[in-house]
Amino acid sequence: MSVRARQAWESGSEADRPRLSGVLAPVLTPFRSDLSPDAARFVRHCRWLLSQGCAGLAVFGTTSEANSLSVEEREALLGELLGAGIDPGKVLPGTGCCALTDTVRLTHAAVRAGCAGVLMLPPFYYKGVSEEGLFRSFAEVIERVGDARLRVYLYHIPPVAQVGFSQKLVERLVTAYPRTVAGMKDSSGDWNNTKAMLDAFASSGFDVFAGSERFLLANLRHGGAGCITATGNVNAAAIDRLFREWRTPRAEQLQEELNAVRGAIEKHPVIPALKAIVANQTGDPAWRAPRPPLVELPGAQAEALLAELRRLGFQMPGLSG
Amino acid sequence: MSVRARQAWESGSEADRPRLSGVLAPVLTPFRSDLSPDAARFVRHCRWLLSQGCAGLAVFGTTSEANSLSVEEREALLGELLGAGIDPGKVLPGTGCCALTDTVRLTHAAVRAGCAGVLMLPPFYYKGVSEEGLFRSFAEVIERVGDARLRVYLYHIPPVAQVGFSQKLVERLVTAYPRTVAGMKDSSGDWNNTKAMLDAFASSGFDVFAGSERFLLANLRHGGAGCITATGNVNAAAIDRLFREWRTPRAEQLQEELNAVRGAIEKHPVIPALKAIVANQTGDPAWRAPRPPLVELPGAQAEALLAELRRLGFQMPGLSG
Repeated sequence: MSVRARQAWESGSEADRPRLSGVLAPVLTPFRSDLSPDAARFVRHCRWLLSQGCAGLAVFGTTSEANSLSVEEREALLGELLGAGIDPGKVLPGTGCCALTDTVRLTHAAVRAGCAGVLMLPPFYYKGVSEEGLFRSFAEVIERVGDARLRVYLYHIPPVAQVGFSQKLVERLVTAYPRTVAGMKDSSGDWNNTKAMLDAFASSGFDVFAGSERFLLANLRHGGAGCITATGNVNAAAIDRLFREWRTPRAEQLQEELNAVRGAIEKHPVIPALKAIVANQTGDPAWRAPRPPLVELPGAQAEALLAELRRLGFQMPGLSG
Repeated sequence: MSVRARQAWESGSEADRPRLSGVLAPVLTPFRSDLSPDAARFVRHCRWLLSQGCAGLAVFGTTSEANSLSVEEREALLGELLGAGIDPGKVLPGTGCCALTDTVRLTHAAVRAGCAGVLMLPPFYYKGVSEEGLFRSFAEVIERVGDARLRVYLYHIPPVAQVGFSQKLVERLVTAYPRTVAGMKDSSGDWNNTKAMLDAFASSGFDVFAGSERFLLANLRHGGAGCITATGNVNAAAIDRLFREWRTPRAEQLQEELNAVRGAIEKHPVIPALKAIVANQTGDPAWRAPRPPLVELPGAQAEALLAELRRLGFQMPGLSG
């Protein structure tokens, strides 16, 4: 850590920036026909998401197929996004990789670029690793990046990563790095786990985001910060409305409407389904393709999904190719 | 693919090199105190493994902590190894990453360097992916590398990667790329799976390696090619002896002796245990450290392991720091 960074860290002078709250989308990554990331479509989609009320862009999440991208591809896309004038204070890139050195590199780049924070997966290749090993992984990244501006949001998604965060591990991390370890995205799908994290840490300023808008109302009622949700890619305005109106009598009804849309999408593989929706709305079939090992939603399934969404009155205002 | 490579591919002129068989070690990766890979210790260990009868070096496997290394770190280590004069025809690097572009890059580098083949994990971040998606992943890598010299060994290790190879997927791959898809390492730990792969594919020249020497004798009796085993890092000479003498009356006894040594090691986390053994034998404590998220074997556990190995008469001839 540089002397200046160490001073800033210790004084906390750079540590009091506004923190993210509300609805964040783990931004879909469009690909060209050669499977390379399509920066122009990506930037257009990001602008649209912000126009719909997204408080932030969780680029390079699971929904973004980020682990199907190389480190260089992520760096290039982030550069394109910020070069296009998107406010880095609204960007929360995913930076957690299997390799310590990759995580450090991506995290360092995000901090240097002025990003709001990073969403960090644990190293996910080895299964059944110890709490001590995971603690060392995060400690090593935080100390190597060594920058008071760093805000780490822990990315808990055991259904995919298999490796997650116990409450004890979170406690060790927030105790060791209280300014830096800023919050969590809980994609466990288990409200009891989210509530336990809220009960344990929310009062000390640790921001818990639900990993699905299904838990948005409950999360806000228990002191949570919002949600970071795949369906934010297509339904951000409605999700943001619940975020703004959660204390009103309409909240339960808004939550039910969100659940209905999510339920329709979740009948299908979610990432290809979201890409099919964006492709349909923009009239741009190039959006449909994921990178292997994912495959695009078959046409008949896409038709069934779109028909069900129409029956639900689902709309995506202002999205065009 | 270049015209020349295409011609070679079609004529098969570069496709008839001798194939690997016998005992391969997924080589441990030593780290310096700053957690950077230690090329000098790595090369020394590789030389020792070859002197012990290893037919090949499966560098960058699970035991190698390869997924805890960046692409650049793997490239640099491979360069050091071959630069030190190790025969690339004995080297089988692990190249399968989550990101298609990383897998292509590492595989291309291995082929260019003249390596015997590559051991390829499937992309392992997304779980429950389709056979079609996995087929496309491998097809895309093989076609992008586009080189008749490429030999792909499929790396099946569902206990860690969670994503594996069904018999149907293997069949599609060997049918589509018969010269290229050369074999498999089966680390399922399930002999019935290994036997099913042998029964289905061994007679057509598909080389099945057991992922543990526990199944070496059974594998050889059913037409397998050998084993690629973590404990090859410390017990290669004895494992190779069974490979050479498997048709003799001593084979069952040799298998039992191997099982006893493996059983002693498997009482502990295997990678830290193997590093503790090498550290003890070389008198070089630097060998003990893994990279996070793994942690070194605690001293008391290491002592217990070494004591049990001594009771079994275990030896590592000629290994020194």
